[in-house]
Amino acid sequence: MPSVADLTATEALSQIKSGDLTSTALVQACLDRISEREPALHAWQYLDPEHALRQASALDKAQADGEPLGRLHGLPVGIKDIINTGDMPTESGTPFFKDHQPEEDARCVAMLREAGAVIMGKTVTTELAALAPSKSRNPVNSAHTPGGSSAGSGAAVGSNMVPLALGTQTGGSVIRPGSFCGVHALKPTVGFIPRRGVTLQSHTLDTVGVYGRSVEDLALISDATSEFEAGDAFSYARAAPNLTDALSGPGSTSVKLAFWKTPGWDLADDKAQAALSDFASGLGRDCSPVEIAAAQNVSVDHKYIQAAENAHYYGPLYDRDKSLLTDDLRGRMAVALETSARDYLGAVERRDQHYRAVADVLDQFDAILCLSAAGPAAHGYASTGNPVFNGLWTYLGVPCISLPLLTIDDMPLGVQLVGKRREEAKLLQTAKWLEGRVSA
Amino acid sequence: MPSVADLTATEALSQIKSGDLTSTALVQACLDRISEREPALHAWQYLDPEHALRQASALDKAQADGEPLGRLHGLPVGIKDIINTGDMPTESGTPFFKDHQPEEDARCVAMLREAGAVIMGKTVTTELAALAPSKSRNPVNSAHTPGGSSAGSGAAVGSNMVPLALGTQTGGSVIRPGSFCGVHALKPTVGFIPRRGVTLQSHTLDTVGVYGRSVEDLALISDATSEFEAGDAFSYARAAPNLTDALSGPGSTSVKLAFWKTPGWDLADDKAQAALSDFASGLGRDCSPVEIAAAQNVSVDHKYIQAAENAHYYGPLYDRDKSLLTDDLRGRMAVALETSARDYLGAVERRDQHYRAVADVLDQFDAILCLSAAGPAAHGYASTGNPVFNGLWTYLGVPCISLPLLTIDDMPLGVQLVGKRREEAKLLQTAKWLEGRVSA
Repeated sequence: MPSVADLTATEALSQIKSGDLTSTALVQACLDRISEREPALHAWQYLDPEHALRQASALDKAQADGEPLGRLHGLPVGIKDIINTGDMPTESGTPFFKDHQPEEDARCVAMLREAGAVIMGKTVTTELAALAPSKSRNPVNSAHTPGGSSAGSGAAVGSNMVPLALGTQTGGSVIRPGSFCGVHALKPTVGFIPRRGVTLQSHTLDTVGVYGRSVEDLALISDATSEFEAGDAFSYARAAPNLTDALSGPGSTSVKLAFWKTPGWDLADDKAQAALSDFASGLGRDCSPVEIAAAQNVSVDHKYIQAAENAHYYGPLYDRDKSLLTDDLRGRMAVALETSARDYLGAVERRDQHYRAVADVLDQFDAILCLSAAGPAAHGYASTGNPVFNGLWTYLGVPCISLPLLTIDDMPLGVQLVGKRREEAKLLQTAKWLEGRVSA
Repeated sequence: MPSVADLTATEALSQIKSGDLTSTALVQACLDRISEREPALHAWQYLDPEHALRQASALDKAQADGEPLGRLHGLPVGIKDIINTGDMPTESGTPFFKDHQPEEDARCVAMLREAGAVIMGKTVTTELAALAPSKSRNPVNSAHTPGGSSAGSGAAVGSNMVPLALGTQTGGSVIRPGSFCGVHALKPTVGFIPRRGVTLQSHTLDTVGVYGRSVEDLALISDATSEFEAGDAFSYARAAPNLTDALSGPGSTSVKLAFWKTPGWDLADDKAQAALSDFASGLGRDCSPVEIAAAQNVSVDHKYIQAAENAHYYGPLYDRDKSLLTDDLRGRMAVALETSARDYLGAVERRDQHYRAVADVLDQFDAILCLSAAGPAAHGYASTGNPVFNGLWTYLGVPCISLPLLTIDDMPLGVQLVGKRREEAKLLQTAKWLEGRVSA
């Protein structure tokens, strides 16, 4: 049965602003969808339907009273459970933080509230946003993994439980679930969305990202959550973005994509390799193969940084009681704690060198085209999938978008586009062009 | 016999500008002093008297032609041999860089030339600015060490071979030689003087500093060499300093010093402890003892950072041919290479916490008073001395000045004053006040 829960965020916002839909009706439709699908999908770590409806009701009243409306007025948003909420627990997927109630919202959550969003609830994260699988299931086929670590956000948007959600990426935790769950996902430039109030595991890598059901949806929520954070060395002063306006024009007509297989190519499924190669071929002269030899070892440097900074941020938990960690994370931490400062500092130093090699290509092309993941979501729950197509981009701090344009054996697979640092507007324009190009 | 080589830089500059002295005459007097004392002191790694005289002659001609004169017009300056010079070799005290000729000046050397200084030559550094002793000797008594790593700069200024010199400090390499050689020394805030073209061993710690024969001399050369360096994360945008003007007023009349023994106190000589305690007592109500418990472990964190960053910067030399290192540095490197990223990142994170504890004290006092070194320069050359009174300040990135106000067994010992980050002007004013206070 058709439901307003199936609208994109952009469509729902338009209907709410025109008076054809109330936030309460939208939130209720989303709660109905959750009632229907949550038993199989386990997308939510914390959900209080009455609290969500109260927020919606207050927003509807504000609109009825003629108050000015925010950019996300009335839209429900799911929040990954490593992002602090002042009115809901934030457990970060670990018994260390069981029932932990933060004193205040993360800055990005506070910005969502300022924009008029309904904070729907907390979506399941893997343990401390690492690789051990969570309880969430894939919304396209619940016998498959939804990926991780933003498992619940991917599953919730993929099953139309909410039109929008926040995730975070340190390796491939925004783009991979987006690819597996068949949703639009944006991991912006590191520092684009403030990280204050987010459980940190790596200050060089941790990046807040967004999920939606269209390129416009990604722009909408990104505009509402992007801000310079003065205390964060990875943030940067800038004019407030207006990605929504950037997408409202006639759009690009001449776009050139660089098809780079990236160093993980041999680890991708045969079918994924074939699907993306065919996709690239289908773009004809708009897409050219490239090789970036100078960036062959970026994944190694990503691993050094993730391990070193994990040791710093999670070491105190490991020291306190390592039995509270999963075997998987305990094993990774044991290795991480041995990471040498020399390897770490080398990887930090090489980051800008690697980036220049990639930026040189992006001076000649509008975006790099590559796989979002090594294949569609695997059957079973043993692994959240391989982040080999994501870690290099997280390390370089560049914006990446995953578009649900491929299907393999009835499961979705994302096409990833990658842009230059701080060029979210161009990346989203290119993504919109690509969607139009392949649907034409 | 009295010589213009014995003038302070400020006095010599005044005489040159008034026409009572030429740069050529000053440089020649300095060269004469070098001829006399260099055989015993070994302060110079590279010196070409003709080249120095040619620079002086050109500056004298410019003055005769009525050209505008720089802040350091005609003054000879010694340059520590880890600081690149485009017209002289830069060997960094190691066979790895034997006869190495840089392509261009370090930025701070270029600034000295722009200010009209004569680049006199390159002063001896310990091996890679580390702790193994150099060939230089103490100018007060050549049977003693001059300290390190800026050994030649301390010896050259202490023996009036040049009125001014540049040094660098990673542990205690500016302040300790200053204390041992009886000269005025300033290690400013990290990033105050640009580091481009200086052999790096630790980007968090390495700080270019200056030597002179008065507080005014330190202001003079600091004004000429301070500049924001955009590519250096430890530099900072600021108005060009004018420390010389800051010293020209009537000066402070009400100054409060905080006498902090610092965590290294028990490692100081009994006589040094007694001398500084007596000095502090002699200041009466102008000086009060303080304890900064929250900063007790700063030296440990200094060591983590120095070791980790040494591993990064010198690791490639160690890998290439560790037999070219002294036993001392080879042993330190073997330890440094084992430093964990976790210890390093912890020390980086704690830096600002420690600084806040110190800054809280400096909100109530004009400067912290402490020892510049654990005692006067030891007899013999086995060690450059203990940097335990310096490393903590280098780690915190705060400005420190050493004033030659104490004498123990006919050898000088510095009194160290420490200020808040970026407050060089106040620190120099306080130093000038202190010199007036004790000479009154």
